[in-house]
Amino acid sequence: VKVAITELKHLVRRVIQGLGYDEPETEIIVDVLLYAQLRGTNQGIVKLIGQGMSKDPIAGEIELARETKLSALLNGNRNAGMVVMKRAMELAIQRTRNNGFGIVGTYNTSTSTGAIGYYARKVAEEGFIGLVFAGSSPTVCTYGSYEPIFGTNPIAVGIPNLGDPIVLDMATSAMAWYGLVEAKAAAKQIPHNVAYDKNGQLTKDPAQALEGALLPFDQSYKGAGLALIVEVLTGPLVAASFANLGDSRNWGNLVIVFDPELLVDKDLFKKQVSDLIRQVSNCKRVPGITEIYVPGQRGDNVAQEAIRAGEIEIEDNLYAELQREAESIG
Amino acid sequence: VKVAITELKHLVRRVIQGLGYDEPETEIIVDVLLYAQLRGTNQGIVKLIGQGMSKDPIAGEIELARETKLSALLNGNRNAGMVVMKRAMELAIQRTRNNGFGIVGTYNTSTSTGAIGYYARKVAEEGFIGLVFAGSSPTVCTYGSYEPIFGTNPIAVGIPNLGDPIVLDMATSAMAWYGLVEAKAAAKQIPHNVAYDKNGQLTKDPAQALEGALLPFDQSYKGAGLALIVEVLTGPLVAASFANLGDSRNWGNLVIVFDPELLVDKDLFKKQVSDLIRQVSNCKRVPGITEIYVPGQRGDNVAQEAIRAGEIEIEDNLYAELQREAESIG
Repeated sequence: VKVAITELKHLVRRVIQGLGYDEPETEIIVDVLLYAQLRGTNQGIVKLIGQGMSKDPIAGEIELARETKLSALLNGNRNAGMVVMKRAMELAIQRTRNNGFGIVGTYNTSTSTGAIGYYARKVAEEGFIGLVFAGSSPTVCTYGSYEPIFGTNPIAVGIPNLGDPIVLDMATSAMAWYGLVEAKAAAKQIPHNVAYDKNGQLTKDPAQALEGALLPFDQSYKGAGLALIVEVLTGPLVAASFANLGDSRNWGNLVIVFDPELLVDKDLFKKQVSDLIRQVSNCKRVPGITEIYVPGQRGDNVAQEAIRAGEIEIEDNLYAELQREAESIG
Repeated sequence: VKVAITELKHLVRRVIQGLGYDEPETEIIVDVLLYAQLRGTNQGIVKLIGQGMSKDPIAGEIELARETKLSALLNGNRNAGMVVMKRAMELAIQRTRNNGFGIVGTYNTSTSTGAIGYYARKVAEEGFIGLVFAGSSPTVCTYGSYEPIFGTNPIAVGIPNLGDPIVLDMATSAMAWYGLVEAKAAAKQIPHNVAYDKNGQLTKDPAQALEGALLPFDQSYKGAGLALIVEVLTGPLVAASFANLGDSRNWGNLVIVFDPELLVDKDLFKKQVSDLIRQVSNCKRVPGITEIYVPGQRGDNVAQEAIRAGEIEIEDNLYAELQREAESIG
């Protein structure tokens, strides 16, 4: 169904407020979810279906647990992952403005940060390079195993240039966890070689995969190695749980920001990254490929088109569920 | 053939000195090459075969082109990649000792840095987290293309813990460039789906692959995205060439180091990373897998065993070629 963006935003805002969030929190969550929804990823409004996003009644103030000129560790204090991550990103940017570098970790949240490309992109819009990592409960196995040990452990990187930032945003798993949830809800099969069942057999049944484990994105040791690194950066490095150890509701996140000016002239850097994008985009294509994108570009195109049209296509079922959520709130 | 490590070291040292390097340079290059050779990777002594490693007669002093308390940019001034990278690593460690973070880039080299896990491991041995990236001439295509546009663009990450460091060291290409060279020399086929010929057909012939392009390691857009990020970090960010633009002999490298103490207690961090390693190692295995390794572990085991035995197995042809190189030097 085609939905006007203003109407969608209104509906999403209503649902989020109904989940117990105050005005500023609601605006952050709306912004992060719309970013993903406009880009057609499964990090968008599907997250509002069910009870996963309700404000935790025991949430307190976000606390600064440790800080230096270059760093901060935030105790998320059970607040929404998106709200805590936004704060972390702002602190990392602030430190980078002052000193050229900032690293900020968060712990003690257990809701989704949404599409972490959102935060990497904001960093790049400041003219800085941003690296963002997000932890969650184990759902992904390492290479050679079928036992869930890592979160889906996404990596996002934002790079400024003269145009829209490069925004790489990739799970280190072969599929997003929400992809399994969606497939199960829609009674669809998942692709071959992305998940094991609980007995270590590859499965196309999302219900069995939900009881088993996702594979690393490349089905191999490099992807598993990257997943492990993200587990370190979002676990031990930020006082959060990891690999089935610690409180299962203590997820961690990490934001690293630095100024290219530490090494080169920033304006020349931006120009050269734009040159690089052009070179890549102009590469000869293999048959069947009509356009070569750099990371973030395809999503930006989709989002810009939707914004121009003022409306967005949403799957009928998903929109109906969102409407039901809003009505149940009253 | 089984070769005593002392004898191998002696031979390697003779070849390197014959290539025009002074005593301190030679010791660095021996150390980096032996690290890889002891681990059985193709970043070892094979690099000494042919003329790729000779000291550039116009090489001058390594120069500090730009610096801040947190950063440095080194003009490699045509010195050996390994020598320049070692200096970069040392400066990044020094800055991290003083300030918790260090970022050092290099440009104006065009010989191999060797296995960049070597440098990431040294950083981890200092108790810091290290990220290392190395650029080179375009040999790898992006997703959807068959035209070489990226270097093999390896990523290395070193993580301290109570035991041997975690050392992830992965090319973002489906194969190392030296793997193609070796396969061609040995008249062996390469695996399916790792390289295109110059017309965009997948090929198993290493000679055709050398005229074409390697694929990203996952044959897909995530691997290509990571390759692009490394191209930025080792190109525009460090005043080096990138994507067929600029002087083809101006390769760049980047070292990023930070202290976990910026966010958490370092001793607890190390202990928890060791806990994580144990959890991963103890995961249930799929049939056919006898041991689950964390990155670096398999290579460390092989190296430790060789050191214990005092000797190492080297392919007959390769060793004969190394001996010829030494003799031609006299």
